[in-house]
Amino acid sequence: MQQAVQFPDDFRLHPSLKASTFPVVHLDLCKVLLQNDERFSWLVLVPCVSDIKEIYQLSSDQQHLLVDEISRVSQALQVYTKADKINIAAFGNMTPQLHIHIVARFETDPFWPNPVIGIGCKIPYTEIERDAVIRDLQEVLLRA
Amino acid sequence: MQQAVQFPDDFRLHPSLKASTFPVVHLDLCKVLLQNDERFSWLVLVPCVSDIKEIYQLSSDQQHLLVDEISRVSQALQVYTKADKINIAAFGNMTPQLHIHIVARFETDPFWPNPVIGIGCKIPYTEIERDAVIRDLQEVLLRA
Repeated sequence: MQQAVQFPDDFRLHPSLKASTFPVVHLDLCKVLLQNDERFSWLVLVPCVSDIKEIYQLSSDQQHLLVDEISRVSQALQVYTKADKINIAAFGNMTPQLHIHIVARFETDPFWPNPVIGIGCKIPYTEIERDAVIRDLQEVLLRA
Repeated sequence: MQQAVQFPDDFRLHPSLKASTFPVVHLDLCKVLLQNDERFSWLVLVPCVSDIKEIYQLSSDQQHLLVDEISRVSQALQVYTKADKINIAAFGNMTPQLHIHIVARFETDPFWPNPVIGIGCKIPYTEIERDAVIRDLQEVLLRA
């Protein structure tokens, strides 16, 4: 069983993100979360800044840190999964807290080349699968 | 009729992006293009760097410039359209040249809250509509 990751007390993850993800690691700006959908290697980055819905609402320094972390996580995810393409999106039409989806995509996946963020029915991880994936991702992301 | 925007000679826009967009302005890193789909206020940013498919393939300085330009364009688009949400995505599953979609979304649009990037059938602009929109966007983006 993974140990709970500790995040700062002064930031509250939106309930819908909390309900649909598991914590993986905490970078300088963002929480990195695993989307609870075993169909894809799918991470969600949430900058720990309150009351932000759009990237342009972050300070310039925070924006630079955000793209640093998007790059770090997406490259690590590509290396880990050998994905053909990394898909990145910030929608937030339903969840009013800035969050960035990072999904490993394969030419052989059943939805290719269509987008999958916000599409279709998620398949939750079993507890054993989830713990193994989180352990692998922690190792990959922390050495990236 | 809009004057053609001049881009550097050493970078070639992918043919599928060229066929589906119109040039608006050229920022320090990115071409800003108008998606030829009158259903949405939809811009596409293309960093003028050859042979790049992923954000992490840009240099750190280019990544910072990219997020600066994403912020500048998305904030200007929000102010211009009064959008409820700006949707941002870098997919590129079909077009192997890094490009970032920036779409103004409204709670009243027929697809809300679903994503629209890569979904549904585009409705091309008429020439008159296109020229008016490009003129407005050039004014908004160049003073942002």
